[in-house]
Amino acid sequence: MDSCLVMVLILVCWTCLISKVEMAKAKSKGNVAGGLTLESVRDSLIRQEDTIVFSLIERARFPANAPAYDPSYFSDPGACGSLVEFVVKQTEAIQAKAGRYENPEENPFFPDNLPPSQAPPHKFPRLLHPAGMSVNLNKIIWDVYFNKLLPLFVAPGDDGNYASTAAHDLECLQALSRRIHYGKLVAEVKFRGERKDYEPAIRARGKRTLMNLLTNKKVEEAVKRRVAKKAMTFGQEVKLGNDTVGSKGKFKVDPDIVSRLYGEWVIPLTKDVEVEYLLRRLD
Amino acid sequence: MDSCLVMVLILVCWTCLISKVEMAKAKSKGNVAGGLTLESVRDSLIRQEDTIVFSLIERARFPANAPAYDPSYFSDPGACGSLVEFVVKQTEAIQAKAGRYENPEENPFFPDNLPPSQAPPHKFPRLLHPAGMSVNLNKIIWDVYFNKLLPLFVAPGDDGNYASTAAHDLECLQALSRRIHYGKLVAEVKFRGERKDYEPAIRARGKRTLMNLLTNKKVEEAVKRRVAKKAMTFGQEVKLGNDTVGSKGKFKVDPDIVSRLYGEWVIPLTKDVEVEYLLRRLD
Repeated sequence: MDSCLVMVLILVCWTCLISKVEMAKAKSKGNVAGGLTLESVRDSLIRQEDTIVFSLIERARFPANAPAYDPSYFSDPGACGSLVEFVVKQTEAIQAKAGRYENPEENPFFPDNLPPSQAPPHKFPRLLHPAGMSVNLNKIIWDVYFNKLLPLFVAPGDDGNYASTAAHDLECLQALSRRIHYGKLVAEVKFRGERKDYEPAIRARGKRTLMNLLTNKKVEEAVKRRVAKKAMTFGQEVKLGNDTVGSKGKFKVDPDIVSRLYGEWVIPLTKDVEVEYLLRRLD
Repeated sequence: MDSCLVMVLILVCWTCLISKVEMAKAKSKGNVAGGLTLESVRDSLIRQEDTIVFSLIERARFPANAPAYDPSYFSDPGACGSLVEFVVKQTEAIQAKAGRYENPEENPFFPDNLPPSQAPPHKFPRLLHPAGMSVNLNKIIWDVYFNKLLPLFVAPGDDGNYASTAAHDLECLQALSRRIHYGKLVAEVKFRGERKDYEPAIRARGKRTLMNLLTNKKVEEAVKRRVAKKAMTFGQEVKLGNDTVGSKGKFKVDPDIVSRLYGEWVIPLTKDVEVEYLLRRLD
């Protein structure tokens, strides 16, 4: 009986030890939480930078094309609004039917009256707290994109390709929206990792405390420098031979603007999403 | 009266001389033809390589996602076909309403029953012979893309993001289609520059002669090497510090496959478009 008790005790201690080692391992790799780790979240954010830079470079192929944004230019019998509004709204409706917004990582710009998915349901991993679904900053992203960012990086002019221009605006909007709303996953993984720090701030509705907990200035500066480097790498004119950068210092989208986009809008809006998500996290 | 005649003669000679100098200048830059030059066509083709490589890299973010291509998976009450067919067809219809196909450089994949443009008409430059409008190789491009190219560069697997996957397939298809049908402009500028060589071959319906006239093996090899370099440059993992390529030799899309895409499909299909266009050029 005694030897049996000793065996059980050894087993319990061993299990505890193993569990602690595993937790320490997970912590060193990032906080593990239901398949979600800080590392996997960071990798996705880094990959999404490429998508954003590509989408800006592709939009910059077209000039400003002002008529695409002028509500008096385009006549859609079923609605009012600009050509770009028409293209975004209608394309979102098609993608909704094809199931795009069944994935909780996707947030539509025109969520009202979106048609239901016609695709069989797919089991996306349930990583987020359900209350986080209501966080949607796309109205702000729309305003920032069209009124602040776009005038900074497109050339003046009008080439008549308004439909293609609008399709590329949609690409930029979706890439930015996905990155910014990825803040929900960032917040979730941080919350699960440091629950004891976040819970009191959430209960106290302490937005500033939460913002401080979420902020890492050193990481933010590194992100800004990295996206500028990506704008240089992806926006250069690639030539054969050793002369990689054909037009020295000339890039398809100004790297400083991409860095500014992140510093002034993408990073702060992502943190706004994180705070809004956390405030709903204990509901 | 005599001095006046001399003056007129000098003026005529001077005008002829200026005109010849201008023509020679134009020829040295490429054949000028109504705003269309070999140089401007080449610049556009080079820029379109970036678009194609970006679109492949973006599609490669998603795994194969077979259900998107399975006609039995998706149920669209108004039609039959796969989810990707639904997304492409419906998105083309929206873009048609927004005027995309008013630009003769754009060729739809589903030209039948496309709705008319609701945008005011835009004066696109008339660079092509009207009979060239009927050249549309998109059925072949569709087949090559889905059955030959796609399996080469996407990872196996299924992440359920079929709508996004289909949207990126459309991006790839449109980029490839635009590049391949740009052959019409290539053929037009070559025809205008060397009319005396092309006319007899066109009249004799000499496809092989035309193909020989259009082929420049050295240029083709350079294009293949350049697109591989672009796949390396745009598909690398950009990191801060000097270590630009983080994962050495690992790219988001295999550069050899991009080179093969051009060598086996893009370049030959572009030349098919050129030949088809030229055969209609004297109609």
